[in-house]
Amino acid sequence: MSERRSRSGGRAARRQARTDTSTVNIVPYVKRQVPVYEFASEEVLDLVERNADTVLEEIGVNFSEDPEAIAMWKEAGADIDGERVRFPKGLCRELIKTAPSEFTQHARNPERNVQIGGNNMVFAPAYGPPFVRDLDSGRRYATIEDFHNFVKLTYMNPGLHHSGGTVCEPVDLPVNKRHLDMVESHIRNSDKPFMGSVTAPERAQDTVDMAKIVFGADFVDSNCCITSLININSPLTLDATMLGALKVYARNNQATIISPFIVGGAMSPVTVLGTAAQVYAEVQAGLAFSQLVRPGAPVIFGTFATAISMQSGAPTFGTPEPSQVLHIAGALARRLKLPFRSGGGLCASKIADAQAAYESANTLNHAALAGVNFMLHTAGWLEGGLAMGYEKFIMDADQAAMLQVFLQGLDLSDNGQALDAIREVGPGQHYLGCAHTQANFENAFFRSSIADSNSFEQWEADGALDAAQRANALYKKYLEDYQQPALDPAVDEALTAFIAQKKAAVPDSNV
Amino acid sequence: MSERRSRSGGRAARRQARTDTSTVNIVPYVKRQVPVYEFASEEVLDLVERNADTVLEEIGVNFSEDPEAIAMWKEAGADIDGERVRFPKGLCRELIKTAPSEFTQHARNPERNVQIGGNNMVFAPAYGPPFVRDLDSGRRYATIEDFHNFVKLTYMNPGLHHSGGTVCEPVDLPVNKRHLDMVESHIRNSDKPFMGSVTAPERAQDTVDMAKIVFGADFVDSNCCITSLININSPLTLDATMLGALKVYARNNQATIISPFIVGGAMSPVTVLGTAAQVYAEVQAGLAFSQLVRPGAPVIFGTFATAISMQSGAPTFGTPEPSQVLHIAGALARRLKLPFRSGGGLCASKIADAQAAYESANTLNHAALAGVNFMLHTAGWLEGGLAMGYEKFIMDADQAAMLQVFLQGLDLSDNGQALDAIREVGPGQHYLGCAHTQANFENAFFRSSIADSNSFEQWEADGALDAAQRANALYKKYLEDYQQPALDPAVDEALTAFIAQKKAAVPDSNV
Repeated sequence: MSERRSRSGGRAARRQARTDTSTVNIVPYVKRQVPVYEFASEEVLDLVERNADTVLEEIGVNFSEDPEAIAMWKEAGADIDGERVRFPKGLCRELIKTAPSEFTQHARNPERNVQIGGNNMVFAPAYGPPFVRDLDSGRRYATIEDFHNFVKLTYMNPGLHHSGGTVCEPVDLPVNKRHLDMVESHIRNSDKPFMGSVTAPERAQDTVDMAKIVFGADFVDSNCCITSLININSPLTLDATMLGALKVYARNNQATIISPFIVGGAMSPVTVLGTAAQVYAEVQAGLAFSQLVRPGAPVIFGTFATAISMQSGAPTFGTPEPSQVLHIAGALARRLKLPFRSGGGLCASKIADAQAAYESANTLNHAALAGVNFMLHTAGWLEGGLAMGYEKFIMDADQAAMLQVFLQGLDLSDNGQALDAIREVGPGQHYLGCAHTQANFENAFFRSSIADSNSFEQWEADGALDAAQRANALYKKYLEDYQQPALDPAVDEALTAFIAQKKAAVPDSNV
Repeated sequence: MSERRSRSGGRAARRQARTDTSTVNIVPYVKRQVPVYEFASEEVLDLVERNADTVLEEIGVNFSEDPEAIAMWKEAGADIDGERVRFPKGLCRELIKTAPSEFTQHARNPERNVQIGGNNMVFAPAYGPPFVRDLDSGRRYATIEDFHNFVKLTYMNPGLHHSGGTVCEPVDLPVNKRHLDMVESHIRNSDKPFMGSVTAPERAQDTVDMAKIVFGADFVDSNCCITSLININSPLTLDATMLGALKVYARNNQATIISPFIVGGAMSPVTVLGTAAQVYAEVQAGLAFSQLVRPGAPVIFGTFATAISMQSGAPTFGTPEPSQVLHIAGALARRLKLPFRSGGGLCASKIADAQAAYESANTLNHAALAGVNFMLHTAGWLEGGLAMGYEKFIMDADQAAMLQVFLQGLDLSDNGQALDAIREVGPGQHYLGCAHTQANFENAFFRSSIADSNSFEQWEADGALDAAQRANALYKKYLEDYQQPALDPAVDEALTAFIAQKKAAVPDSNV
């Protein structure tokens, strides 16, 4: 193997290969060619469906502080009791039938359009952390500068297909205006598709209006240009904020992810099947409501499930029960013929250590094998979502790139079968220099951007760095090499004017 | 959640729970209740089988420097050309039919007997590392003291069911005698089942003789008391050392794992299907040979596949292509109706960092979902198998315990369905104090021995430790709390006498 090593150019070449940031995405999204893991039997899925129906019919869901939503449900034939909506059996699933099973979310660069649903998989970065962390400065509040950085890192990373939404919360900007800067950052610093603001109906509308500047108003009304995250306040509550945003996006024909946010044992029962039934009831209510607002509006079956630590009361990640919930939820989404969203590199660890990696790898693998169509929180997540890690981001994105290779399946060609190689080499020899290896050298085997597979001695000579230290260097290299994708000058101008006008219209506020 | 936190006894109680070492195994092995992941279609498996048949028939396998083996193959109808054996189509699979699809490996404590094959899964520690590593002394050569330590840690760990074999290589002992100390350590320091020496036929025989002391000679001849690892020298070679050990174990009716050891691109083609065909050819040749030696001898379909780094020539771990090989191999073992062995927590990382954890978690998850029956290298592996890590061991074993919960499947009872809990709590409330949560508090949700899921503030107050630092404390606590399981005094005496006699019979040697 030392022969191969020297032939490949030695240490300098290896370092070069490791820090190559020139590949801005290879494929716009993953076309899954391998089966999903069928964790739950049809009998189990039937059971969960029956129980979800019972929950919808007997217990119902609160549509909180939104008389319009209540009126819409009354009109649709639901049983209304104050804010509580109870659903005659089958009503939700009947309404959901108008939702598309697959749709295209457009990017301002059409080559980066993503297909959401079916066998397609789209990976997006983490969403929501108010803190950031890197090895240089530890943990601190996120700023708009960090936000820009993560949009840039996502743009450049071949493991991620979607720019995401609140990649971190820019707490240095006023709450009532920061959505303008965030959406602007997604538009200017990337040409991948993005998510919109959900913190108030008018901010959702601003997002739609900015998309109209980029894509044109008519185009936006008939095409999905924004996908946004509507969390359900589990158990069994959709609140006015989320309903407000949902209505804006659905009315504008933009996609929403209806996503119960569950720490099992706190927001759902302490069992897998109990949590699954509640999730299925909640998500059906939200999905159906989106179709009441605008039949045919694109919508995604979302799930975010974790489990409480019975020792400390804190949420845990990468543990077996939420993985089981994830597989059941994925199968239920397939039953409804809708796209499925789950989490990705989730962890409770505060730093990018082995705990973070085990936990993240567990959810990444289960989500991938569950056939997730939209993987939110693919990269960067630390501390139960409170912090976005620069090094963690690089590591997770590398894992996402690996998953991509796994999910693309097998090469069934004669070259893939490689019988000639086995004939050429024969017993007791090695394949390093054989014709088949030479012919396939460039594309054979996944190459990690961050793993060190060298000998102990080489690793020591390279400074005995851990994965986080290597990731620290790589994220800086990415940012150094970053080049902003060109933006149409007319769009540029209109966007600047829109944001200036919006910012001038009202005073700063932190609510 | 702070309410729950204080109720559970606060920081001291949490630390207590985290470092509880009193549970010496909860279940003797895993009875898998969830489906396997069917990665490869029947068509793909047919293709691999056809190609393996071509390899066996046209290219053949070397049975190296073992005239007895060659004579046995000639007698069995194979085509002999020097050391090369070519197999008429179907011969291997016909011979393999006498191997049992499931068997019991006995432990000296019958409560720890393991069932190998079918839906059963047995997890064993890493095998073979000449080095050990911990945070205190870094990397150094392993000693018999380290060997004892890892046997003790495995004995105490609920995530591991099998004591393994060469948990590390005690390089402070002479090569020609260290097997006596290793087998003795497994027998004395644990009562879980163990593996035997394969470095020479007489050392294999010593292992069998020591088992006879523990279990009785007649019992050993009719029951499996040892499982041993027979690596194939890929490509397509079984060498005299491995054949020698294989023959001893099979003749004594003891189990062997026939395991191609493959770094893809060096010992097999650079493609998944090429590697899979070669693996299947190699393993069939070895399995069939075990049945030539003694029809009905227990044998396991083994696979160890990794991929070469095209950058450095070093083996990589946790990457997508070897995971694909793993799933195909698992499915082929099921075709042969034989137990399946693969790797577990494999990694290239030199230390117990995020790289080690991502890589290990990837293989652990894929092996589990491939339905592995005997998972070797479940815990401790670092540096491509060159080092056994104390902290890594603790982390991996925690993951193995998690897998166990995942694999045991769903609770379908009314309590598991938890409809009453959802009724009790209702929209907008929380489940923390509800009757169902109270009733299930003790057993709900997996509790990691090593993950820190506390708040950032609590974690900082606890010293801001990373996972490796916590694991360092925990492995020491295990060793401190260790208590040797009682051994029958007659066995004790006979074992001591046997070892003394064997050691006195020949001078120390390092070959």
